[in-house]
Amino acid sequence: MSTTIGIDIGGTKVSGGVVDARGRILERARRDTPDRSREPAVVEETIMAVIDELLARHEGVEPEAVGIGAAGFVSADRGTVVFAPHLSWRNEPLRDRMSERTGRPVTVDNDANAALWAEYRYGAAHGHAEVVMITLGTGIGGALLVAGHLARGRYGLAGEYGHMQVVRGGLRCECGNKGCWEQYSSGNALVREARSMVAAQSPLASELATRAKGDPAALTGPMITEAARDGDRTARELLAEVGDWLGRGIANLAAALDPELFVIGGGVSAAGELLLEPARERLAKQLTGRGYRPVARIVGARLGPDAGLIGAADLARVEHLGPR
Amino acid sequence: MSTTIGIDIGGTKVSGGVVDARGRILERARRDTPDRSREPAVVEETIMAVIDELLARHEGVEPEAVGIGAAGFVSADRGTVVFAPHLSWRNEPLRDRMSERTGRPVTVDNDANAALWAEYRYGAAHGHAEVVMITLGTGIGGALLVAGHLARGRYGLAGEYGHMQVVRGGLRCECGNKGCWEQYSSGNALVREARSMVAAQSPLASELATRAKGDPAALTGPMITEAARDGDRTARELLAEVGDWLGRGIANLAAALDPELFVIGGGVSAAGELLLEPARERLAKQLTGRGYRPVARIVGARLGPDAGLIGAADLARVEHLGPR
Repeated sequence: MSTTIGIDIGGTKVSGGVVDARGRILERARRDTPDRSREPAVVEETIMAVIDELLARHEGVEPEAVGIGAAGFVSADRGTVVFAPHLSWRNEPLRDRMSERTGRPVTVDNDANAALWAEYRYGAAHGHAEVVMITLGTGIGGALLVAGHLARGRYGLAGEYGHMQVVRGGLRCECGNKGCWEQYSSGNALVREARSMVAAQSPLASELATRAKGDPAALTGPMITEAARDGDRTARELLAEVGDWLGRGIANLAAALDPELFVIGGGVSAAGELLLEPARERLAKQLTGRGYRPVARIVGARLGPDAGLIGAADLARVEHLGPR
Repeated sequence: MSTTIGIDIGGTKVSGGVVDARGRILERARRDTPDRSREPAVVEETIMAVIDELLARHEGVEPEAVGIGAAGFVSADRGTVVFAPHLSWRNEPLRDRMSERTGRPVTVDNDANAALWAEYRYGAAHGHAEVVMITLGTGIGGALLVAGHLARGRYGLAGEYGHMQVVRGGLRCECGNKGCWEQYSSGNALVREARSMVAAQSPLASELATRAKGDPAALTGPMITEAARDGDRTARELLAEVGDWLGRGIANLAAALDPELFVIGGGVSAAGELLLEPARERLAKQLTGRGYRPVARIVGARLGPDAGLIGAADLARVEHLGPR
């Protein structure tokens, strides 16, 4: 069975894997993502180190192509990373560079596109052709499947759902605007609200304060999710609030796009039903035309942090190897 | 050259035409839309009357297929009108009924889809594959072109942009929600604001009051547009406000969908640049990632009220006649 290499370039790690035609990861390698002060070539070196390690260790069929998923704006022809917030890349011609270095055909795509593709081919979206993926990390990333194809927009920048405005004149976003969805539904939003409760010394936040050893700044998303799983009422309320905002944005996307399925991925989605159930309740209350139409399903992603890597490998497979 | 019939079922008129392979209307006919208290068969009779008149008058090549665009929810398989706000249709199997009655293959679609298709094939969107159409009538209708294909969503209900929430807890909408976009950017919004200025007896509204003969309820959208064209400052400000809100919603859609072009149709778009320029200004100020990406263009529709009819005829052509 043929294999390809998938690379997922995140804010902290560059993860790679050799992936087969069933989406299984046969070999893994990873490195820290170089600091964004380093020049672009250093990121290339890091990717090459991951690929070289994979090739050295992998004993099966030689990988025939390389797929790279990167957090950032990827051009419509998928040759260039226009902008990557965590890296020094600006209009980086990544496809040609890496193709030259690896001697293999290379496919580049946005990390959210790669993740949705993986969920479509091997995960939660399998068998569904009209899908919206929402990745809740520090912010909101996203992707869109229309008729079984990734819809990337004219310039490759579709799926920036996190910057749709949900509160006019709301919280300031890093993008420069106010009231962006990701200010209300994301890991950052969850942590911000939890920290402010701890900082206010609310008795409701005593469990969270204990877990953070009294230091609001030490509180993390996983701590909150863990407290919620252990039954802490405040942590559950905070997750439900993020879930409610998730449902509000989903209602807007459902009005515009009418998908059959919303797949929720990213770190915050580890909270599972504590997040998804409030989102479903909000969607049921806010979907336009409710009562006259089917309501899209909201489910958690199934491939977890591997989705980007598997999807990148599979996009390279589809582009360069065809349906084998 | 082969011909097809296009039918546009609006809230007040059923318009029909014989359309050739270049999108030209060779013959026209129309009737009043039956009141929604009348049974479904009456609408069918009306459509048949339009078709019969067209066939009787048309002297060229016999039309080979019929396309029908209807304001309402059309099922994903485009056989059924699920719900039409102006008509008595509920789950009306329109395609089969009309195919039987006309003895010709029939295509049914949402009126906004038909309009976008017409603009894509013969109008403002010609040559563009990633397009969002927004029709500003009493409310907001819309459609989406992805890779040169209409994206209808899983259940055929995509493009209900008017019911995306832009103001949390905002004005109540007929759909039951609050703060829907069409409450701020539509013909209804324009008239509501103008009437309230006249009713408040603001000296700024003296020109509008004169045109409405002092009766706020007599004020119409076309009166406001005409006053704006004649230079009335208040009418211009009111249109600019609707245009500003138009731009806010467009910024959200641009973040999600990254189209190259927004085509603005519907009755309110007759205001032209008085509406579009403020929308462009708002988009330039609010597009996420501005400065790092191209800004989508915002243009007026070119086919006017004929778009639905031409698009319906052409969709029937593409489906049943192929590329002739």
